[in-house]
Amino acid sequence: MSEYDIVIIGSGPAGLEAAITATIRKKNILLLGQKKCSTKLFKAHAINNYLGFPGIEGSDLEERFEEHIKALGIEITPKTASAVYDMGDYLAVQSCSDMFQCQAVILATGVITQNLFPGEEALLGKGVSYCATCDAALYRDKTAIVIAYSKNEEPEAEFLAEYAKNVIYIPMYDNPEVSKDNIEIVNKKPAEILGDDSFTALKTDDGDIPADGVFILRESIAPDTLIPGIEMDSHHVVVKKDMSTNIPGVFACGDITGLPYQFIKAAGEGDVAALSACAYIDAKNKA
Amino acid sequence: MSEYDIVIIGSGPAGLEAAITATIRKKNILLLGQKKCSTKLFKAHAINNYLGFPGIEGSDLEERFEEHIKALGIEITPKTASAVYDMGDYLAVQSCSDMFQCQAVILATGVITQNLFPGEEALLGKGVSYCATCDAALYRDKTAIVIAYSKNEEPEAEFLAEYAKNVIYIPMYDNPEVSKDNIEIVNKKPAEILGDDSFTALKTDDGDIPADGVFILRESIAPDTLIPGIEMDSHHVVVKKDMSTNIPGVFACGDITGLPYQFIKAAGEGDVAALSACAYIDAKNKA
Repeated sequence: MSEYDIVIIGSGPAGLEAAITATIRKKNILLLGQKKCSTKLFKAHAINNYLGFPGIEGSDLEERFEEHIKALGIEITPKTASAVYDMGDYLAVQSCSDMFQCQAVILATGVITQNLFPGEEALLGKGVSYCATCDAALYRDKTAIVIAYSKNEEPEAEFLAEYAKNVIYIPMYDNPEVSKDNIEIVNKKPAEILGDDSFTALKTDDGDIPADGVFILRESIAPDTLIPGIEMDSHHVVVKKDMSTNIPGVFACGDITGLPYQFIKAAGEGDVAALSACAYIDAKNKA
Repeated sequence: MSEYDIVIIGSGPAGLEAAITATIRKKNILLLGQKKCSTKLFKAHAINNYLGFPGIEGSDLEERFEEHIKALGIEITPKTASAVYDMGDYLAVQSCSDMFQCQAVILATGVITQNLFPGEEALLGKGVSYCATCDAALYRDKTAIVIAYSKNEEPEAEFLAEYAKNVIYIPMYDNPEVSKDNIEIVNKKPAEILGDDSFTALKTDDGDIPADGVFILRESIAPDTLIPGIEMDSHHVVVKKDMSTNIPGVFACGDITGLPYQFIKAAGEGDVAALSACAYIDAKNKA
């Protein structure tokens, strides 16, 4: 199991700033996120109130952010965290089949307003999965549905299609492109996960789709699914002034902590979260 | 009395960001501060963790900030706020002889760790003054002491010297330059304000200096002197998540709200304070 001081989950302004400050403080970090740091940022038109960059385009600001992390030798690892476990002495972050050990976790995933589908939680692990890479082998010669929330999931579906007989790909974004013959793109709106003891079919706005399993590939997993027991206020993680949460060693920053959803606010909080995580680790190691 | 939606006190990263966001939100603002926005910023060597500007010099970052406010037509008014009054329907900000009416105030002065001198509070208005411009005429043919915390106060002392017989100028910074013959620069360390009913002399580390009055010209006035009743925690103003204080319509951001003292944290808070002040004003005007 790889060991880090801090695992940062999310690569928008909050996560990048946290990574920068933690790196300057000589912490060994793992930054999980998308290679294109932030979809929201990338798509933003002129941003007027990020102090220092009057009227900058989102894609230009993102480039500046990328240059900044590059200057400090920071890399984004393009993986999605699927669970965080409190192991007593340390925290463990799971990403599909990988497990990362660390002393502190910084949540910077942005706000996640997608609700779980009815039936999803009950059938998780019983035909419902969040990770195509881990579970692909279970679908040899079977039919699997993939509900994908971003283009980044296309390689996941293609990997799955190497094992599965058929993959039904339901894109929750525009202009999907998948290259395998046994992947069928289906534009229906998922409504409910059906099955009693195990998954049987996906109910949609246009009929049920029976299959052996369903992969739900969101860009991020809601904090209380990721870390059971974390204190929430609606879709937001409750943080103190130092960005600590109710779980020791777990910090949060950016949109996930609440309104306003603003790039400069997110960056400022990322800085605070990183400094607090560093102080937490230093105090723990002294004790 | 000039009227504004928001008076912002302080022109470091927090105040500038607040000014930018409030301006974008179409509020009519007054930004009080130093022309060189922030001494702390200007003097900073390489700043590594202001996201988007890897390893930038403090003076270069300040230039970027200045360009940003210029792009939005925002100007810094080089005045020091000396008091904020809650007038019920509105707030009034006093700066020497000027009085500005507004609906919200944003405090962004940075943290002020200078304590009052012993005797200062008791003799305020009785020979102790914070404003040379307002009270200069009272010192016609008299001797006044000026304790000045920055170079910006030199014109104040020179203006005072047009009225006073003698001005004893005690610089609390390096390399003072004053151009009038009746100003004497004295490098002593002020220790106490002496006098029973009114000021009689300044006690220093090197003897007492008798005079008719003393001007204490700090870059900023401590929040609880500026706004009596504002809730403090040591040198910091207590704020809620939305940067509101216990005084309705008064918000705070940046170093003044507490550690960590970081430029990006200050800017992020300035954004939040401005949005909260805008929401406060909009709600008040709807009611």
